[in-house]
Amino acid sequence: MKSLKHLIIVLFLINMSCQNRTSKDEATSPSVTEIRNDIERVEPPHWWVGFKNENLQLLVKHPNIGSATPKISYAGIRLKEFHEADSPNYLFLDLEVANSAKAGKFNIAFQLEDDSELIQTYELKARGKAAEDYVGFDSSDAIYLITPDRFSNANPNNDEIDGLLEQGIDRTDGYARHGGDLQGITNHLDYIEDLGFTAVWPSPVLTNDMPTGSYHGYAMTDFYEVDPRFGTFEEYQKLAEDLRARNMKLIMDQVANHCGLYHWWMQDLPFKDWINDQENYEQNKDEWDWKTTNTSNHRRTTNQDPYASNKDYLEMADGWFVSDMPDLNQRNPFMANYIIQNSIWWIETLQLGGIRQDTYPYPDKTFMSHWAGAVMTEYPNFTIVGEEWSYNPLLIGYWQEGHMNQDEYKSNLKSTMDFAMQKNIVDALNEEESWDKGLVKMYEGLANDFAYTSPKDIMVLPDNHDMSRIFTQLNGDVVNTKMALSYLLMLPRIPQLYYGTEILMDDFDNPGDHGLIRTDFPGGWNGDAVNAFTGEGLKDEQKDMQFFLKTLLNYRKHSKAIHNGNTLHFAPDEGTYVLARITDEETVVHILNKNESPQELDLSRFEELELDGKMLRNIISDDRIHWGNSLKLNARGSVILTTKLQN
Amino acid sequence: MKSLKHLIIVLFLINMSCQNRTSKDEATSPSVTEIRNDIERVEPPHWWVGFKNENLQLLVKHPNIGSATPKISYAGIRLKEFHEADSPNYLFLDLEVANSAKAGKFNIAFQLEDDSELIQTYELKARGKAAEDYVGFDSSDAIYLITPDRFSNANPNNDEIDGLLEQGIDRTDGYARHGGDLQGITNHLDYIEDLGFTAVWPSPVLTNDMPTGSYHGYAMTDFYEVDPRFGTFEEYQKLAEDLRARNMKLIMDQVANHCGLYHWWMQDLPFKDWINDQENYEQNKDEWDWKTTNTSNHRRTTNQDPYASNKDYLEMADGWFVSDMPDLNQRNPFMANYIIQNSIWWIETLQLGGIRQDTYPYPDKTFMSHWAGAVMTEYPNFTIVGEEWSYNPLLIGYWQEGHMNQDEYKSNLKSTMDFAMQKNIVDALNEEESWDKGLVKMYEGLANDFAYTSPKDIMVLPDNHDMSRIFTQLNGDVVNTKMALSYLLMLPRIPQLYYGTEILMDDFDNPGDHGLIRTDFPGGWNGDAVNAFTGEGLKDEQKDMQFFLKTLLNYRKHSKAIHNGNTLHFAPDEGTYVLARITDEETVVHILNKNESPQELDLSRFEELELDGKMLRNIISDDRIHWGNSLKLNARGSVILTTKLQN
Repeated sequence: MKSLKHLIIVLFLINMSCQNRTSKDEATSPSVTEIRNDIERVEPPHWWVGFKNENLQLLVKHPNIGSATPKISYAGIRLKEFHEADSPNYLFLDLEVANSAKAGKFNIAFQLEDDSELIQTYELKARGKAAEDYVGFDSSDAIYLITPDRFSNANPNNDEIDGLLEQGIDRTDGYARHGGDLQGITNHLDYIEDLGFTAVWPSPVLTNDMPTGSYHGYAMTDFYEVDPRFGTFEEYQKLAEDLRARNMKLIMDQVANHCGLYHWWMQDLPFKDWINDQENYEQNKDEWDWKTTNTSNHRRTTNQDPYASNKDYLEMADGWFVSDMPDLNQRNPFMANYIIQNSIWWIETLQLGGIRQDTYPYPDKTFMSHWAGAVMTEYPNFTIVGEEWSYNPLLIGYWQEGHMNQDEYKSNLKSTMDFAMQKNIVDALNEEESWDKGLVKMYEGLANDFAYTSPKDIMVLPDNHDMSRIFTQLNGDVVNTKMALSYLLMLPRIPQLYYGTEILMDDFDNPGDHGLIRTDFPGGWNGDAVNAFTGEGLKDEQKDMQFFLKTLLNYRKHSKAIHNGNTLHFAPDEGTYVLARITDEETVVHILNKNESPQELDLSRFEELELDGKMLRNIISDDRIHWGNSLKLNARGSVILTTKLQN
Repeated sequence: MKSLKHLIIVLFLINMSCQNRTSKDEATSPSVTEIRNDIERVEPPHWWVGFKNENLQLLVKHPNIGSATPKISYAGIRLKEFHEADSPNYLFLDLEVANSAKAGKFNIAFQLEDDSELIQTYELKARGKAAEDYVGFDSSDAIYLITPDRFSNANPNNDEIDGLLEQGIDRTDGYARHGGDLQGITNHLDYIEDLGFTAVWPSPVLTNDMPTGSYHGYAMTDFYEVDPRFGTFEEYQKLAEDLRARNMKLIMDQVANHCGLYHWWMQDLPFKDWINDQENYEQNKDEWDWKTTNTSNHRRTTNQDPYASNKDYLEMADGWFVSDMPDLNQRNPFMANYIIQNSIWWIETLQLGGIRQDTYPYPDKTFMSHWAGAVMTEYPNFTIVGEEWSYNPLLIGYWQEGHMNQDEYKSNLKSTMDFAMQKNIVDALNEEESWDKGLVKMYEGLANDFAYTSPKDIMVLPDNHDMSRIFTQLNGDVVNTKMALSYLLMLPRIPQLYYGTEILMDDFDNPGDHGLIRTDFPGGWNGDAVNAFTGEGLKDEQKDMQFFLKTLLNYRKHSKAIHNGNTLHFAPDEGTYVLARITDEETVVHILNKNESPQELDLSRFEELELDGKMLRNIISDDRIHWGNSLKLNARGSVILTTKLQN
């Protein structure tokens, strides 16, 4: 049953002819002598010339537009077909945008049944840069993940916006809005860049016009609009531009699985199957609450499980993520096109450096393969990372492009997330050393790389916005936190850190509480007693961690050995563990010591590193050390040594 | 470095010409008018006509035989080459045994330097049955694992054997010999067959002439001799024959990784590299103890880890397993041939139904691929299961034949062991139910089958001779033990149970203690107060478990649905979990309930089972139940229901 359903969706890009009327006469529309915006909504709001895929499907929403006959006359544009929807207020137009078309504006004329005419001016833009120049984040990057509402409030004037459902800000409530905005991020790019990060991933900033919880951004109510509480469209563009000017990358957090319950289309859904469980929604929408929702069973292994029941699979994929997030039906071909075009629109608009796709295993997986494939076809050097929170390396491997899956699933996803390593690192440092506990968890976890198509394209993280802070997970142990971060930043991976890690932000008061995890960054608000941007009021151990991470990340920024070098590690022994990253020009060695006492490390075991007699530099302290017969290790902690003696 | 080493061993089947003398003149040896056994030792002691591989390499051991010139004259036999060793007391003969050769005896003449001659009669036998008729164990089997010293002592006369290093039996000492023997197994085949088992795997019974701990059998001191304390060669054959007469399979436990410290060749090793770390051994052998040994680091992930240091890999593969088990050097081509021929010799001699290969990740892995390939070439329908005790499904998958490994390792191993599932089952039943604990461990563990080449060829076990008894692991909970065994016997796997599981044998007094795990089977010794074979003296719960397992195993024996049917399961919900095995003719459903109270299971969720309105039978109680809207489940426990109404 599952395979049949999957086959069906393969058709989604093929224009369906049933119930559709074909444009036969190529009548001439008025030329664009005046800009007209008679139509309530056309999406995408504009497009570009020069994509590999010359098809463009416009969603047109307007009262009774479904019965209209559209016409376009513009060189290089062909209106191939148009489609009525189930609602009379939608019309979908299939355009072919030839690569020979010129950028410019043209009018779309809609002839209504009463012979009146509506005109909508549509713009075709020239592309900003060559497709191959959209280079996605990779292992040479270090990503700073930000919850924009909680980072910095540059503009208090946009904290409350008339007409939106959620009003007011309340910084004492972890689940209310706090006022952080895009300009707040843009203002502090010096800080982020100085720390050594090369990419910024803000969690979603599109409009979440939801009555509560709108701060987190994952319940989008408009896929083409910046939430005015985060700022303007231009401010989002400015952030992107400023990052590019610094040779840094902006990563957009996108959601293909669901929208917010208050999305504009929820009161007038174009098709009967625009969202999953739509009949239930239509019947109960006036009294919708959590009891009404058929939420996902969240049994994500049904994506791979050869024995999963179809019922469980559908409950996972088609159930709503939570009660106020309608589950989009990507098997509807118009929805499929809508999501793909939306992704491309933002990449092109912001010249993005990557996409983080939310809840990757939840949408129809065949669609996700098409979606990622469509993006990668247009942007061959781009990077998408998909979120699956799983500790199972089989799943981390399954989703990555090129993995030989027995069900023949072809992912087009360059990057997945290494939650398994996240857990291994925490366990390794929290556990007492024994044969199968402690450092061996890191060592054997990393050995699993044999099963991944491209380990260095996998993202690794100490924590994120959904998880207890790493400092809390490590029970407030600064030394262990440094060891965890050092190891993670040495791995053949793409590292992602969450804002505030550099100042030991924690959630001890209620571990795992989302509001607390996403605490305001000190200094982000006028009048904050502590300012982590300037260092004012920080405790010594916070300043020390800032310095530590800054030094490490800035070393990493220029270290080809860490970006792409060979990896060599040695089995943990007596509470110590040695990992090295190596190119012909540079060897970087990370030595961990979990013992409470200083150790004398016999270096003869590490002959393969070919460091005998060499001078190395401690990248944090800048001390020189000679690689001789043995090495004195301080009590518990780790050192990173490099053969590059000049900083 | 590792790959170079691996390349070198590829040469092992190619006869090496350096330092070897070629037999040039085809002088006529005496015809076999008399049987002569002038030579101390020739191995294999005999061979067969009709193998795909016509090469045979004889190990000849005799004082100063290295300088002799061997001659053979027998139609169809060609002495291609002979090789001196490092020790003067060995000669290796490369024979070609043409398929046209007739079975029979012939003499090998050894002309010594002083022109004297030694004669050894060698036999070439006809093969017992066609190669394809050696059918190995599979998912239609259920395997009974026995520690022969601890099962039944049929012949007290062989308990002590003059001249062997370990003398005496002491049933109060878990690490001493207890007297069990092969005849003891043979005597109780009715019991084993009645229980519903179809295959018997005794742990090794070849000679372990070791001063201590010889009972376990894994320290072989002669690869061609049955330990006389277990019985005679003929008794081993008799066990094999009796099993075949019952259409049951004998599985031999073989060890390619190591031998016992007192192996006959340890005082006069043929080559300088016959064993690993040989130089150390030669220097210290007179005062050998555990401190002298360079034991394996046991870091088995170095087999797969792309970042493992060569030093760690070699310490794993070439270190001794324990201090009294020398590590065989399978990279020596003569050793490689020796091990392969030894395996084939036993398969052919006993008409085996399978091999269990000990410590699979420890020998050189390229050799293991050749070894398994050589066996499978001769016996295409045979089964070998390799032991790797790992909870990591990546490793379970890696070793199985056909898995697409990125390092291009081609295993020829049909079966691996599912320790991951073993742990999942125990955790699932011991843990309190929650989102990610309890039954979901079984459910998600089984989902991992998507990554295995052939899940039904993987062996699954509740415990074994190296692990705490399942009843102990489940804290003495009989209901959980039944649930664990039921689930395990329903899986698309080859189930293996350890002797005594049917009477709830335990190791509570010292969990994990090997001596205690391998407790004597009650009734196996004359005068035992309890006799589990007859039921005399068993507690009610033991009798009940015997009945339970017997009923279940005998159902399984004829259930094509369990052997090879489709698998369908439903995500655990509210402490219940449903798994089904399905063919067109038969559906078998296992329903687990972890709740302490009876449950009313809504059956509408299980529509895909297509059981609506059908009558089913509880295979244990024989009760009939109607599959309607709902099903009453008793408090904690599980039921197995089948559509086959006749037992």
